[in-house]
Amino acid sequence: MQIIRAAYRNIAFYARIEGGKLHCLDPSKGISGPVPIEEAQLLPLSVPTKIVCIGVNYKDHAAETGRPMPEEPLIFFKPPSAVVGFRDPIVIPAGVGRVDFEGELVAVMGRKCRNLTPEEAKDAVFGWTCGNDVTARELQKKDGLFARAKGFDTFAPVGPWIETDVPDPGNLELTTLVNGEVRQRGATADMAFHPHYLISFVSRIMTLFPGDLIFTGTPSGIGPLSPGDEVVVDIAGVGRLTNPVVEEGSPTAAPEPPDTVQ
Amino acid sequence: MQIIRAAYRNIAFYARIEGGKLHCLDPSKGISGPVPIEEAQLLPLSVPTKIVCIGVNYKDHAAETGRPMPEEPLIFFKPPSAVVGFRDPIVIPAGVGRVDFEGELVAVMGRKCRNLTPEEAKDAVFGWTCGNDVTARELQKKDGLFARAKGFDTFAPVGPWIETDVPDPGNLELTTLVNGEVRQRGATADMAFHPHYLISFVSRIMTLFPGDLIFTGTPSGIGPLSPGDEVVVDIAGVGRLTNPVVEEGSPTAAPEPPDTVQ
Repeated sequence: MQIIRAAYRNIAFYARIEGGKLHCLDPSKGISGPVPIEEAQLLPLSVPTKIVCIGVNYKDHAAETGRPMPEEPLIFFKPPSAVVGFRDPIVIPAGVGRVDFEGELVAVMGRKCRNLTPEEAKDAVFGWTCGNDVTARELQKKDGLFARAKGFDTFAPVGPWIETDVPDPGNLELTTLVNGEVRQRGATADMAFHPHYLISFVSRIMTLFPGDLIFTGTPSGIGPLSPGDEVVVDIAGVGRLTNPVVEEGSPTAAPEPPDTVQ
Repeated sequence: MQIIRAAYRNIAFYARIEGGKLHCLDPSKGISGPVPIEEAQLLPLSVPTKIVCIGVNYKDHAAETGRPMPEEPLIFFKPPSAVVGFRDPIVIPAGVGRVDFEGELVAVMGRKCRNLTPEEAKDAVFGWTCGNDVTARELQKKDGLFARAKGFDTFAPVGPWIETDVPDPGNLELTTLVNGEVRQRGATADMAFHPHYLISFVSRIMTLFPGDLIFTGTPSGIGPLSPGDEVVVDIAGVGRLTNPVVEEGSPTAAPEPPDTVQ
């Protein structure tokens, strides 16, 4: 099942997509009939209280960045203000140098949880989506910490929807394309840590809430983006996330992020 | 003016404290008369969409950690799930090794904002409070990144209230005490970057929202906490934050964090 968040008549809701129409999942919202998708406003697919990312989770990406494979997952955060959705522009800030794409499988949490086993983590996930862990590479190296380099507004595209029917998130093909050319081709089967293990690991540190996002790491092939590019993260059986790239100050930059407290 | 967030008859609201009573700031909440403070449930003082912290901002702390003073602020995030309030316990997780206090001045943002000048940052702050950037020191060294070491539930105590009348946050005396003994004695005048400059810097990276917290860095004197300790962060003219320290699994550990999406 494919789920998106949308607004119709100023009411925000989660909906199932079927036959080009939105079927509201919450009867209390008072939206009884299906809504044609073109009459609704598509919203970023969740309002996370936090976004937890995994630093190095594919052996080939570890090799290309010169980092050793960690014995346990290495986590960092992106801020919720960085989230944008399907077809929203990635805005390259002025003066930051090289900005890279990193295509990733992303878990959307379904309930409040803490101290999960990997098996319990499976049940605590609402669904899966595609994400791009956009990174200002030179700032990442300069700071040593990742918060600034990965924290700019629009640096966390996710979408196009939440796919709830994913038999094994540890067995998916992930492809990142820039202007139609394949740049990353990875398999989540090559992850050092299975997505359910990652969620379990994070939940032993901190409480997770519905809508929280877990970025599961990127395979090799990362590379720079330029204004005018179109970047696609395609995960077979999950979806295809498309975002244009613009420079700061561009009329199409749409720098206003969504309100994250609603 | 001292502001806290409280709940009374299941309604959460911000209130001014005066004469031991709470005066609700929002008439639409329907709480007309003052509420005796002992009849209300005190809540963590904001529901941040993000917590941005500064890594090294006092020269003496840079020296004690062996880090050079950065040319520009070094930022990292703590997750909102780590927030607890006045007198809430700091829970030391099992098996993480040394856990340190770091007393800090904290800004509470008052409005949605982006690309502020330091002067504009002054007006975008709702008020100031005391914070403790609790840190699992060995995990911080092991990971290199700070997210795990500083991200455990209860590792971001803030309080006791939001003080709105702070003539200059860059001229305050900060003292951290453990079991009544002074461990940190610092002056925000010794910061490398003034708090308003820090907020301006962060706002040039990411949009800030009302309730977002900015931890402004810690002076020298950091040290370990043990179960049974009581740690106090006292900032003259702002407030005095007190938290007991307990170990994970303790009956007083109260591990249930507040819901951060409301």
